[in-house]
Amino acid sequence: MKNYYIGIDLGGTNIKYGIVSSEGEIVTKGIIPSRANLKKDVILSNIKKAISSLLYYSRKNKIKIKGIGIGCPGIVNVEKGVIMDMVPNIPQLKNVKIKAELKKDFHCPIYVDNDANLMALAEHKFGAAKGYKNCLCLTIGTGIGSGIIIDGKLFRGSFFAGAEFGHTSIFYDGIKCRCGNIGCVEMYASARAMVKKAKKLLDKDKNLLLYKMVNGNLNKISTKRIFDLWKKGDRLCTKIVNETCVYLGTAIGSAVNLLNPEVVVIGGGVAEAGMKFIKKIEKEVTKRANPVASKNLNVVKAKLENDAGFIGAALLAQLSS
Amino acid sequence: MKNYYIGIDLGGTNIKYGIVSSEGEIVTKGIIPSRANLKKDVILSNIKKAISSLLYYSRKNKIKIKGIGIGCPGIVNVEKGVIMDMVPNIPQLKNVKIKAELKKDFHCPIYVDNDANLMALAEHKFGAAKGYKNCLCLTIGTGIGSGIIIDGKLFRGSFFAGAEFGHTSIFYDGIKCRCGNIGCVEMYASARAMVKKAKKLLDKDKNLLLYKMVNGNLNKISTKRIFDLWKKGDRLCTKIVNETCVYLGTAIGSAVNLLNPEVVVIGGGVAEAGMKFIKKIEKEVTKRANPVASKNLNVVKAKLENDAGFIGAALLAQLSS
Repeated sequence: MKNYYIGIDLGGTNIKYGIVSSEGEIVTKGIIPSRANLKKDVILSNIKKAISSLLYYSRKNKIKIKGIGIGCPGIVNVEKGVIMDMVPNIPQLKNVKIKAELKKDFHCPIYVDNDANLMALAEHKFGAAKGYKNCLCLTIGTGIGSGIIIDGKLFRGSFFAGAEFGHTSIFYDGIKCRCGNIGCVEMYASARAMVKKAKKLLDKDKNLLLYKMVNGNLNKISTKRIFDLWKKGDRLCTKIVNETCVYLGTAIGSAVNLLNPEVVVIGGGVAEAGMKFIKKIEKEVTKRANPVASKNLNVVKAKLENDAGFIGAALLAQLSS
Repeated sequence: MKNYYIGIDLGGTNIKYGIVSSEGEIVTKGIIPSRANLKKDVILSNIKKAISSLLYYSRKNKIKIKGIGIGCPGIVNVEKGVIMDMVPNIPQLKNVKIKAELKKDFHCPIYVDNDANLMALAEHKFGAAKGYKNCLCLTIGTGIGSGIIIDGKLFRGSFFAGAEFGHTSIFYDGIKCRCGNIGCVEMYASARAMVKKAKKLLDKDKNLLLYKMVNGNLNKISTKRIFDLWKKGDRLCTKIVNETCVYLGTAIGSAVNLLNPEVVVIGGGVAEAGMKFIKKIEKEVTKRANPVASKNLNVVKAKLENDAGFIGAALLAQLSS
């Protein structure tokens, strides 16, 4: 018998949500702005709105909801449903008791976890990591998140503080990160880092194609524009993409040397650059990770794209109940 | 009822061996040179000599040996008992079928694994990591090896190629390592790296205490001498030790961000520098790893010291039979 779960994916820009069956079918889905710059109560009330609209849908369509899963940025105490730390993009969520807050309004069982953990859960069950035992799943967007599957199960570490791949240092004396560490790959290879680097380079040389493309408005620079020009062979964008691959290859290579996964799944906005970019990262990883691990490694693009977060959240509710 | 196992620890310099009970007591132990510069047959025959002498001891003392465990450098296919790769210190052992070779001479069950994995196994069962669920065990000597315990069990990765912590890159554009990777922490913070750095610095300035200590013979520089002078406040040795801790802190911090262990155990020759050195590493790790992981982390000195390797090897035989 199929069961149905609500999945919520709270991001820095949007809340994505949906009803997902135990077999991974999306019954309905939606998206609203998370308004992450506002007070935590506003954000919580937006999450509640998303849940309410899904519950309304489920009543109308006679679908019984068995549980609600929430994916949040940061380190989440899964047992208590509390965001503990590492939420630089929505700092007002630190120490917020998400589960307890939502329990006041909804009577379904509620489960909370880190968003990248849930992306990994979804990709492992229904997506690009299906059938693999040990997987490293990355989501490269504004920041870099990750989830780790070990022996077919989500691995969170001892205190829910593992799988923080974005804070792998690729240079002991490098850029200071907001997390306190030095040289975090997130500071070098995230969408934000790529755009920052482009701005810096354009500031020196206004005669470049990217500068003309955005009509001199540096705020219009996006990774999409960088990748588009890279595919056309533009020199500046090729430099940025090449360096990004070296940074990612370094951090992924180190993680592969530790975890020896069968597959590295790459998702998030930056992965939308397509297979040419994924292949370029793979090449760099293969050069760096140990030969036995490299030989047996697949670097692949995530499959579930923007839905991975709420599918994983629904899956968390399914697996936990 | 107690059972007894033979443990063999094949290192670049010595073969350490012993008979160990299922409760971790060492019944007898010994050490012979491994003569790692000679042909693989010589090394194999030295391993056989060690086993034979222990079997002789066991017959004389009416101890029944239930199995033999062997720890080797490199990536070991544990199922086949073959050294697959990553044995730069004893390269002639690559592709050697250790288990099959020994089976010709001995009728006990024989098991083979990576030496640092076995050190981790031993420290987890009988030493500094006892009682912890998730552990990262490092052995810092000529090279840097590691073993990972996840959920109370040895974690080897998908193809036995995990737990290669020594090949964590701490600089994407750093020193080229013999493994093919760039910036491996082993090239920065191993005993060999420390001595190399000392030699380089002394070459520039012959007026330093360390230079006088070795009477100008740079081949006499050892980590022991460096640590001794560091404890006395020598400027050059303080610089070397400080930098070593930054390098180790960077790599351990990244590993802690991924694995979120409860404990990091530090063993091997360099760890003999003592608690002041371990505390210094801990401080650097705490600065770099995420706050939730740091707060709950213990960085401790290995307990079983030089015996960890063969105790772990005996333990492997126990756990596998």
